[in-house]
Amino acid sequence: MSYVDSLEKLFAPHSIAVIGASRREGTLGKMFLDAVVAMNYKGKIYPVNPKADEINGLPCFPDIESIPESPDLAVILIAREHVISAVEQLARKNVKQVIVVSAGFREIGPEGAELEDALLAKLKVHGIRMIGPNSMGLFNTNPEISLNATFSPTEPVPGHVAFISQSGALGVAVLELSKKIGLGFSVFVSTGNKTDIGDVEVLRYVANDPNTSTIIFYQEAIDHPHEFRQALSDVVAHKPVLVLKSGRTQSGGRAASSHTGALAADDRLTDAFLKQSGVIRCATLQELLDSAHAFATQPLPAGNKVAVVTNAGGPGILASDALESCGLKLPDFSAATLKKLKDFLPLEAGLKNPVDMIASATHDTYREVCTVLEADDNIDAIFVIIVKPPVATTPLLISREMEPLISKSPKPFFFVIMADIEHDGSSEGIREIGVPVFAFPHTAARTLGNMVNYTKIRQKYTKPDLSVTTTLTAVPETRHQLNFEECATLLTRYNIPVTPNLITAKIEDAKSFLDQHGPLAVKIADENIIHKSDLELIQLNISDAQQLENAFSRISQNVEKHLAQKGTHRFLLQKMYPPGVEMILGTSKDPLFGSVIMFGIGGIFVELYQDIVFKILPITRQDTQDMIPEIKAGKLLDGFRGLPKVDRSLLSDLIYSFGKMIQENPQIIEMDINPLIWPKGSDHPVVVDCRATVSD
Amino acid sequence: MSYVDSLEKLFAPHSIAVIGASRREGTLGKMFLDAVVAMNYKGKIYPVNPKADEINGLPCFPDIESIPESPDLAVILIAREHVISAVEQLARKNVKQVIVVSAGFREIGPEGAELEDALLAKLKVHGIRMIGPNSMGLFNTNPEISLNATFSPTEPVPGHVAFISQSGALGVAVLELSKKIGLGFSVFVSTGNKTDIGDVEVLRYVANDPNTSTIIFYQEAIDHPHEFRQALSDVVAHKPVLVLKSGRTQSGGRAASSHTGALAADDRLTDAFLKQSGVIRCATLQELLDSAHAFATQPLPAGNKVAVVTNAGGPGILASDALESCGLKLPDFSAATLKKLKDFLPLEAGLKNPVDMIASATHDTYREVCTVLEADDNIDAIFVIIVKPPVATTPLLISREMEPLISKSPKPFFFVIMADIEHDGSSEGIREIGVPVFAFPHTAARTLGNMVNYTKIRQKYTKPDLSVTTTLTAVPETRHQLNFEECATLLTRYNIPVTPNLITAKIEDAKSFLDQHGPLAVKIADENIIHKSDLELIQLNISDAQQLENAFSRISQNVEKHLAQKGTHRFLLQKMYPPGVEMILGTSKDPLFGSVIMFGIGGIFVELYQDIVFKILPITRQDTQDMIPEIKAGKLLDGFRGLPKVDRSLLSDLIYSFGKMIQENPQIIEMDINPLIWPKGSDHPVVVDCRATVSD
Repeated sequence: MSYVDSLEKLFAPHSIAVIGASRREGTLGKMFLDAVVAMNYKGKIYPVNPKADEINGLPCFPDIESIPESPDLAVILIAREHVISAVEQLARKNVKQVIVVSAGFREIGPEGAELEDALLAKLKVHGIRMIGPNSMGLFNTNPEISLNATFSPTEPVPGHVAFISQSGALGVAVLELSKKIGLGFSVFVSTGNKTDIGDVEVLRYVANDPNTSTIIFYQEAIDHPHEFRQALSDVVAHKPVLVLKSGRTQSGGRAASSHTGALAADDRLTDAFLKQSGVIRCATLQELLDSAHAFATQPLPAGNKVAVVTNAGGPGILASDALESCGLKLPDFSAATLKKLKDFLPLEAGLKNPVDMIASATHDTYREVCTVLEADDNIDAIFVIIVKPPVATTPLLISREMEPLISKSPKPFFFVIMADIEHDGSSEGIREIGVPVFAFPHTAARTLGNMVNYTKIRQKYTKPDLSVTTTLTAVPETRHQLNFEECATLLTRYNIPVTPNLITAKIEDAKSFLDQHGPLAVKIADENIIHKSDLELIQLNISDAQQLENAFSRISQNVEKHLAQKGTHRFLLQKMYPPGVEMILGTSKDPLFGSVIMFGIGGIFVELYQDIVFKILPITRQDTQDMIPEIKAGKLLDGFRGLPKVDRSLLSDLIYSFGKMIQENPQIIEMDINPLIWPKGSDHPVVVDCRATVSD
Repeated sequence: MSYVDSLEKLFAPHSIAVIGASRREGTLGKMFLDAVVAMNYKGKIYPVNPKADEINGLPCFPDIESIPESPDLAVILIAREHVISAVEQLARKNVKQVIVVSAGFREIGPEGAELEDALLAKLKVHGIRMIGPNSMGLFNTNPEISLNATFSPTEPVPGHVAFISQSGALGVAVLELSKKIGLGFSVFVSTGNKTDIGDVEVLRYVANDPNTSTIIFYQEAIDHPHEFRQALSDVVAHKPVLVLKSGRTQSGGRAASSHTGALAADDRLTDAFLKQSGVIRCATLQELLDSAHAFATQPLPAGNKVAVVTNAGGPGILASDALESCGLKLPDFSAATLKKLKDFLPLEAGLKNPVDMIASATHDTYREVCTVLEADDNIDAIFVIIVKPPVATTPLLISREMEPLISKSPKPFFFVIMADIEHDGSSEGIREIGVPVFAFPHTAARTLGNMVNYTKIRQKYTKPDLSVTTTLTAVPETRHQLNFEECATLLTRYNIPVTPNLITAKIEDAKSFLDQHGPLAVKIADENIIHKSDLELIQLNISDAQQLENAFSRISQNVEKHLAQKGTHRFLLQKMYPPGVEMILGTSKDPLFGSVIMFGIGGIFVELYQDIVFKILPITRQDTQDMIPEIKAGKLLDGFRGLPKVDRSLLSDLIYSFGKMIQENPQIIEMDINPLIWPKGSDHPVVVDCRATVSD
């Protein structure tokens, strides 16, 4: 049986066995069965309990063997020590899908982890797929299934959002909080310990579920990022994927030895990963739910141009602030639009965007004004603010009056209703219109901002080439440093320009190199000596033969004096450049994400302002194009105060080549190009220094 | 009559006249009278309307003259063209307080502004004080007054928050939205066009109102910042003041000529002003209302250490993220606390902060755990998360069970109830406990963050010396540049060290200056020549007499060549310093806030990272101490990569002296100290270059 069939039977089973069903109030077994029955499941239910004949009017089976068929799905609710034996019995019954709700596995420590490993091994033997353990279950609101296989005290509201949650309890919270905003779900699954089936397979299932239009995740950890990114790459251009990733402020506590590594704070990598994967990362649970609701109910805006309509000035100003801070624009209206607005708005009204219809606006005014704005080609979305009107209309009347316009419009509508519509009983009627309703302008603005962001993702997302899994996360114990010459050879192979250089012990060779490339920097050629400057083992601006001879002898003396190394010394000679734009480019291996590329402004900027950006390998050309504008001091690249103007497209190509090199050479554990200089008068950047660590 | 009496009669009148009362449904006059009657006003009401005998059961008066007494307050609702005549009649009746609800004044343009000026003049003649015009009125929920003098369709909920709003409609929105969270108000006033009584006087009134514990503002503009700051300085250590200032993203559109001026974006100045004034600035309306509610109902936390208690892990992690990002700490518990928790929590529970009591927690568990945590000396606030429990308890039961603990605790409690308590009808019961209730951890965390912030304000706020109003905002048209020598004289008078310097045309004087202070920088001494470097009119590192002579002749040649200035030239000689920490310090005049001080990291950092901070004059020592840590690249001051370590206290003193100088010399329009250098090996910073513009 293919994995697709297996997942289909998990999410849309025709029959389920409930191992550990109970008729005792307050037990998991009772709550679970209550939930299944309450939602009127369309398949067959087989409660299993040795002590009961019937529960909730359903005939009960004393053991798994007595079940008269092979159910599509078994849900296991019994104590953890009996789970493996239940799996064995289910295997004999040819059951291939289970959800293990039972807890007490990996999440409680080593002993539980051992039991979990044993369980997984048993499942593999029998070819059984599992969600859990420590799962709260799943539900599917498809009317042909109508299965609530959770012990949630809250009945699911049907809709088109799939919710995949690493926390079962957060699932309950979300179901409750979603009721407040009228957000409905297609499927929900609590993935629990993700021992067998994890985010990747569930994502692939919901991606193909015709009842799901929007996918949201709550994640405490991203497992298998490479596979997750691959699964996302097949989805994000078709269905929006939103992620709430918690644990932002916890330090990852990982040892990082290189410069690049030390700067690679976990959450910045998570951010980079999700952005590269075409995911919209939400900062708060509220943002996740509000955004899911908007995606599921509204058409996508074509762009970021918003018309704001209000019956009160103050809230209009607050909305402008909020929208602009989310990257949205309030464009001027066309002359034709202004003329139409003028025709039916009072003299005191503000015709410019935001349109302040003043307090006398009725539902007719709202309808008329919104009809005009909706028809304006320069407007992508309509933002409607309603303060409780002091005239003969209500938010409910306004909403109903606008329903025909909204339902046929290809543009999204957002309502900000600054009134207590819960207590006056009108909230349900308003929500029936199917428009997202907010109490505050800033939450609505952020949500619309996410929709515009997704429009951009659709336009520019390009699939990464994930066919080759290169970058192993495990860092080998045996490793060695590459010297500059070795780095240069590698970089040159990928068309990354490196400063002309020579390693030699012979003054004659050095002199002819000087003739060709001077002025030079001269250093001791030993990559194991770290503090070369401090020990005066570097001489700069060597421009004639005499200086070169002096440099050789001075460095030799210092090596002998400080390091007690006698004999013939080898020197690294490098061409020196006029000053230019100093950048850094590096890579390191993250234990979770694998190889990471870092680009930033060089010099002290890195340390003082953390002005660096990260991408996870593999990178697309779009990723490297995104990196450069993410730098805060971007104007340093554009001919700042006499510095050369950097060709951003060429720089982006170079970063892309660097990424390709790292991907094709997985033995590179760390590499720091510092500095990468775009010299004055040059038409390309050049690697002036580079260090690398590779596995043996 | 003193202004205090007048304000008292405005906010707590014993009798009011309603000029323009009406019995026609839907009119302002009817809605207004309905509101007054509905709230059961304790004083006498005199409706005035020539066409009615009685309205709402109250006898009606045909004109102002017929009112049988002199009412404390008159509310004017009639058309704008009749307002002045009504004021004249009220004057004859010896009425001294009016609220003008009528609109159509300054807010609609020049014609309205003219009418507003005439109205104000008339009021001044008769010694009448006014709120408005274009006000929505005010209310006072003090049970001895119980006046709703607004036409708000929403009845006020009594409480202890005073709300002063520049937008009347936002007032309505706030009343509505406040009902959702159970926030009650002492007084509300819509200040309208603030033609006579503005924020300052209202603030002074509510500061002394015993029924008001917390003061909140909605402002679209800060008028009279100097007086407002003075009024705030008498309040903020006693009552928290929260401000929502809109118009953040609108550019102020002001011309700014100097470096300092060009960087002084409006909103950063507003931020600085509010922070210096001890105000908590809220970013959103939601934050304003949530925070007001928390301040009005909870004791202040002593510090930033929070215990989180939850029945679900995921929300606990979200809460940790949110709290930490608001600057709060989740400390470890004491061994004694841990032991007590262990005694009654199940094995699977997480005892560390956040305490995860797991889903089986009942109201008893919540009470027991919170009792233990509340008693821990290392905890300042308790953050309680409730996901709808799958066991025999409810959020309402939990809340009630905890009420005795909360009501006697000196520590604040915050509830995050992630359940639809509106629809199950328990929200009102829960809110009766008097604890702020949130649906999401991040909104609760931000609110608690504001309380902790206010605790800090109480601890460290110092009143500025506002007795001298120095810094006029009007910039005179005639002005001139000060040269370096003149700047130096002024700076030296305020003990701000300036690099030793000499302006001379004589080589002998220059030589003896060189002997004393070399090496030197030599420049042409003409403050009107701007691009001195480009024209090679500066020579650096002059360390012997020969170099000095060469410098004099080279600069002279260049002046003659580029500027065709013949004759004897004067040179500015300045002592040069070894490299050090480069800073900038400046001032400019803002049309609203007056003189502003700017401090930042010098060199290209200013431009690339806008790493500068602003304060409004006058500055306190606390202000200058706050400035330095507000710099992003603060570690540049602490001995970064071989740079000298800056004595922050000495630097702060220097900024304070600079502020004092600007305040005492209001003729200074702009001044830029760039750079201010802390040289290697020095124990103080030194002004290396300075330009200034002063009024003639």
